Amino acid sequence: MLILAPISSIIALLFAGYLVYRIMKFSPGDENMVKIQRAIQEGASSYIKRQYSVIAIFFAAIFVLLLFLSKKGYLPIFVPFAFLTGGFFSALAGFIGMKVATEANVRTTNAARVSLNKGLGVAFSSGSVMGLTVVGLGLLDLSAWYYFLEYWYTHTHILWFTHTDIILDVGRRIQQITATMLTFEMGASLMALFARVGGGIYTKAADVGADLVGKVEAGIPEDDLRNPAVIADNVGDNVGDVAGMGADLYESYVGSIVATMVLAVAGGFGLKGVMIPLLMASVGVIASIAGTFFVKTKEKAEQGELLSALRRGIFVSAILVAAASFFIIKTLLPGNIGVYWAVIVGLLAGLIIGFSTEFFTSAKYAPTRSIADSSLSGGAPVMISGISVGMFSTAIPVLTIGAAILASYFLASAGCAEAVKFNAGLYGVGIAAVGMLSTLGITLATDAYGPVADNAGGIAEMSHQAPIVRERTDALDSLGNTTAATGKGFAIGSAALTALALIAAFKDEIHHLGTELSVSLLNPYVLVGLFIGAMLPFFFASLTMKAVSRAAQSIVTEVRRQFREIKGLMEGRTSPDYASCVTICTKAAQKEMIVPSLIAIASPIVVGLLLGPESIIGLLSGALASGFVLAIFMANSGGAWDNAKKYVERGAHGGKNSPAHKALVMGDTVGDPFKDTSGPSLNILIKLMSMVSVVFASFILAHSLIK
Amino acid sequence: MLILAPISSIIALLFAGYLVYRIMKFSPGDENMVKIQRAIQEGASSYIKRQYSVIAIFFAAIFVLLLFLSKKGYLPIFVPFAFLTGGFFSALAGFIGMKVATEANVRTTNAARVSLNKGLGVAFSSGSVMGLTVVGLGLLDLSAWYYFLEYWYTHTHILWFTHTDIILDVGRRIQQITATMLTFEMGASLMALFARVGGGIYTKAADVGADLVGKVEAGIPEDDLRNPAVIADNVGDNVGDVAGMGADLYESYVGSIVATMVLAVAGGFGLKGVMIPLLMASVGVIASIAGTFFVKTKEKAEQGELLSALRRGIFVSAILVAAASFFIIKTLLPGNIGVYWAVIVGLLAGLIIGFSTEFFTSAKYAPTRSIADSSLSGGAPVMISGISVGMFSTAIPVLTIGAAILASYFLASAGCAEAVKFNAGLYGVGIAAVGMLSTLGITLATDAYGPVADNAGGIAEMSHQAPIVRERTDALDSLGNTTAATGKGFAIGSAALTALALIAAFKDEIHHLGTELSVSLLNPYVLVGLFIGAMLPFFFASLTMKAVSRAAQSIVTEVRRQFREIKGLMEGRTSPDYASCVTICTKAAQKEMIVPSLIAIASPIVVGLLLGPESIIGLLSGALASGFVLAIFMANSGGAWDNAKKYVERGAHGGKNSPAHKALVMGDTVGDPFKDTSGPSLNILIKLMSMVSVVFASFILAHSLIK
Repeated sequence: MLILAPISSIIALLFAGYLVYRIMKFSPGDENMVKIQRAIQEGASSYIKRQYSVIAIFFAAIFVLLLFLSKKGYLPIFVPFAFLTGGFFSALAGFIGMKVATEANVRTTNAARVSLNKGLGVAFSSGSVMGLTVVGLGLLDLSAWYYFLEYWYTHTHILWFTHTDIILDVGRRIQQITATMLTFEMGASLMALFARVGGGIYTKAADVGADLVGKVEAGIPEDDLRNPAVIADNVGDNVGDVAGMGADLYESYVGSIVATMVLAVAGGFGLKGVMIPLLMASVGVIASIAGTFFVKTKEKAEQGELLSALRRGIFVSAILVAAASFFIIKTLLPGNIGVYWAVIVGLLAGLIIGFSTEFFTSAKYAPTRSIADSSLSGGAPVMISGISVGMFSTAIPVLTIGAAILASYFLASAGCAEAVKFNAGLYGVGIAAVGMLSTLGITLATDAYGPVADNAGGIAEMSHQAPIVRERTDALDSLGNTTAATGKGFAIGSAALTALALIAAFKDEIHHLGTELSVSLLNPYVLVGLFIGAMLPFFFASLTMKAVSRAAQSIVTEVRRQFREIKGLMEGRTSPDYASCVTICTKAAQKEMIVPSLIAIASPIVVGLLLGPESIIGLLSGALASGFVLAIFMANSGGAWDNAKKYVERGAHGGKNSPAHKALVMGDTVGDPFKDTSGPSLNILIKLMSMVSVVFASFILAHSLIK
Repeated sequence: MLILAPISSIIALLFAGYLVYRIMKFSPGDENMVKIQRAIQEGASSYIKRQYSVIAIFFAAIFVLLLFLSKKGYLPIFVPFAFLTGGFFSALAGFIGMKVATEANVRTTNAARVSLNKGLGVAFSSGSVMGLTVVGLGLLDLSAWYYFLEYWYTHTHILWFTHTDIILDVGRRIQQITATMLTFEMGASLMALFARVGGGIYTKAADVGADLVGKVEAGIPEDDLRNPAVIADNVGDNVGDVAGMGADLYESYVGSIVATMVLAVAGGFGLKGVMIPLLMASVGVIASIAGTFFVKTKEKAEQGELLSALRRGIFVSAILVAAASFFIIKTLLPGNIGVYWAVIVGLLAGLIIGFSTEFFTSAKYAPTRSIADSSLSGGAPVMISGISVGMFSTAIPVLTIGAAILASYFLASAGCAEAVKFNAGLYGVGIAAVGMLSTLGITLATDAYGPVADNAGGIAEMSHQAPIVRERTDALDSLGNTTAATGKGFAIGSAALTALALIAAFKDEIHHLGTELSVSLLNPYVLVGLFIGAMLPFFFASLTMKAVSRAAQSIVTEVRRQFREIKGLMEGRTSPDYASCVTICTKAAQKEMIVPSLIAIASPIVVGLLLGPESIIGLLSGALASGFVLAIFMANSGGAWDNAKKYVERGAHGGKNSPAHKALVMGDTVGDPFKDTSGPSLNILIKLMSMVSVVFASFILAHSLIK
């Protein structure tokens, strides 16, 4: 039955390949358009090349460290290699998505010259390539490692480099396999953090820098070729919102599956429990492909119809997954049908969070309208109301996830033996996360097409298309904002559930090492860990915000310099030096992504060594609780500011260039790093910290100052 | 020996009375100044009158509820009465401080006409009255209740209204006494929350409203009599920063002492352990009075010398307390001298947090300078860098409190029996908080004189004094900002420690009710409680920020209306209608303070009833961890924006009215509710939630859906 996993992953990749072929068949438009597209593509490629070489050094260093720990007997033999491949495939998923996006952007512009619907077709195909590549590669890697490790541990007894010959029973063997696969996920996670933080800094530095001087000071429109940072800004969409998001969601997807697999044995569900998340993901891939065929609409569709077309695709996939999961679980775990209900809980929770995000960030509803209204009193009220809306919006997701945790925990552990009840419950929580992400193939497609549409709009503007083209790409972009809200809901919600499963996996790993942790909240080490953990997301967000601010500052200085020194620029007689802004962003992103990433890796190890393994549970729980809330706050504040600005741009409160609009442009500028740099990295931070803890558990246990 | 407590409290109150007499002897200046002062005083009194009548209804309702629970046998007989008196005295401390401040403000202006030093004298005396009233009333009430309950429980056996005749052993008797006193603290805490939230909304609505229209739109200076909101703004300083802060610190002071007393018996330190915090507070009062005599400087002092004069007073008091505590603890607990070291840990932690706060919020250091620098690029970079500095600044306080928790825990519990080790350790944590707050008499004086100086500056401006007068009051005000940083460090740090002791008190209360809680972080109820708890401070901050924003909006509308409709106003030929702005603020504050306060009271009861008492420990820990970090972030961002603005006003980056200054005025406007409304209420929120949990513990245990 497990053969379904590689098969469906290959189907996904083939279908993605077919979509790429279809996209490439579209004409990229006239020479001018192609010139702009080439500039964007080159900027993106040079960034990616540079970033991957910096990251390669990091990965090499950690690989050597893991190799050393493996040689010392702290880690199974394949851990260092799993780590490398995880990073490689996460990067590959982002890279492919970005490559396709930088081909699809200009083709979307060109297609939008014909009709809105044609534009949607190209952009959505590009998003689907991303979605299917992520799930296809994820599932392929997972099943390849699984088959390989299963074979290895069945046919050899080599566990460590030191050739300790231990004969493993089935339970311990699967535990060993899943533990190695967790390191695979750690590599993916570290890569995702780099991609999110680096890409996020790049895109927002360029965006903020371009807006501050271009829109606010010089008063030229967005995406104006006279702005020296305009190419960097469009490159940013691709490296941040596409490559960054791809790596991020690859990590989320693989993470939820692996974390659940790890808990299957501890929860008493055995090999069948290990197979379930893989099988659910497999049917999810097929369901996603099926769903894309429902994203069709008549030629002259309204925007509302487009949205329901996208939604129809998602719902069809979700229903298919829900139906297929029932048969999978009924067959494999006939005595634990509660596990199936955990899937439904996960799907529902994702939907509720998605709707809540939409409610708080769409200009159709009161919260975002209230921000738009406050702009009549100036910039400070915009800031206060935006922050207030973001903080307020944390309640529903937290209560939903709380309810989902309790429901999936008790549904999955009902009828289980007392000894495994806890792990069985957490397995249920993991299954809820897998359920939430099983349709990622299509939800990511609706999410990843947004930046393509955004870029298409930029190209339309820069190549001086008829206003109708820009209007169409804007409609696509704004539609993308709405669907992205649902996508973010899934990402944030699943992260909280996955992180919880990973914390349980850490406890389980320590248990396998022969120690039982007392993680009472009244244990002072746990408490202090909790405090430090609750602080880290704030500290991390501070570093990434500061990085954006510093890099944007360099862009501001550079753009001002060019405006001042290049004669005839404002009159459009000469061209600015786009490459210098691209270089500044690229360098800044590489430099600034290092410290935050080091903190994510080092903090659990340092805290564990100084305050003992029990404090790590406190640390991870604290980081999860405060990071989850902070992530929602930042994402929703940013989204609401963005849409309040767009709402005024459509004519409310004086429309474009009114004082109200200026105040909201400022809100949006602050919201940019909130929602696209700091906020989305927090999910990865939490999971990476958890995975580092699991991977280094035996080392920490052996060397901690506090036993 | 315990007689020291009432004696020193009476000394404090007498000394405060003497200071009031001295302040009143100063001349309030000319008729014009007195007229302005009267307007401020009347505004403040009418606010207080109105607020106290709203709060009285609340207290009456909760009193009836507690009476009912007491009759049903859930609570000891005196709990409802203790609750009332706690609220009453907290309100009284704030009221006295406010009354004196509204007399001292004009006298400070008048004294500043003579010299800076004279101005300092009056303002600092007013601050000292506040400091000594808070500690004097606090200590008086605590010892009165203690003596009364001790007598009652020794001589009668009446525990509940239902006259259950139980003969109590010493341990259980003291437990009963301290539990009742905790309700006293719950009353103080609820009052403090109302005062902080209501006052905070009032002061910031007036401030933001006055600035938005006056400074930003109309371009008239701060404290200009042409601004209709100017009186409301000056009233706000008194009702928010004075009355609000007084009630707040009364609550912190009493809370740390009571929480420590509660844990004394459970920690195995018996009656002597109960006496220690009271005795430390008593010597702290005397040490504070002694310290005030060191706040002297030569007539023509520099600002730096003034600051060291204030600091000298604080250090002298701290050293006296450290020395006296040694003898107290050596005498009462000769076998547990570690408890003494917990005092030192508390004092040191308070100092470190104070210095850290100063570093991140003073324009002398890089962080605030970086915010000032970012103002050259406009409003959005000011916002991003301010938020980033605030989030960054959370690291040192969290690590310091973490270290202080571990140190005081292990110092105090060293050598204790295993059974009481946990409570003994938490007793040590409580003692650290008491140590931190023992010199509150003088630290609060250096804190509370700031708003008096602020008001004095306003009166100087409005009564058209020579520029030198305003310069002097500005110097005093800015000095006050620096000392306030230390004061805030003590308040935030002690809140974290006290809240921890209160969480332990909750567990102990449940233990006395015959149930042992399993509060493992891997218990799903605990975890969900943790999530909800981590969310609540964000939600609460959102409500209070939104309230400020809404109320400020009404002020903006009103001020704009007056500017438009009252002819000759801008030319200074006619007077605006100040009373209408005062009324708007007063009404808004009453209306907006209710929902946040209800959430604080209701959340632990609702969560406890739905998810069981174990989830309450999660809820409280989550709220503590995230609330502590959020409070530091908001307070420090706000402080840094304020001082960055003042730094530019002193001439940097183009000085007043430059674009950089405008950007920073906006930052300061956002920072106002951060640092004076939402941030400081979070400390009270956390403690109030903990106390409600303890008081309602037996009710929750009996009626919870989850056992």
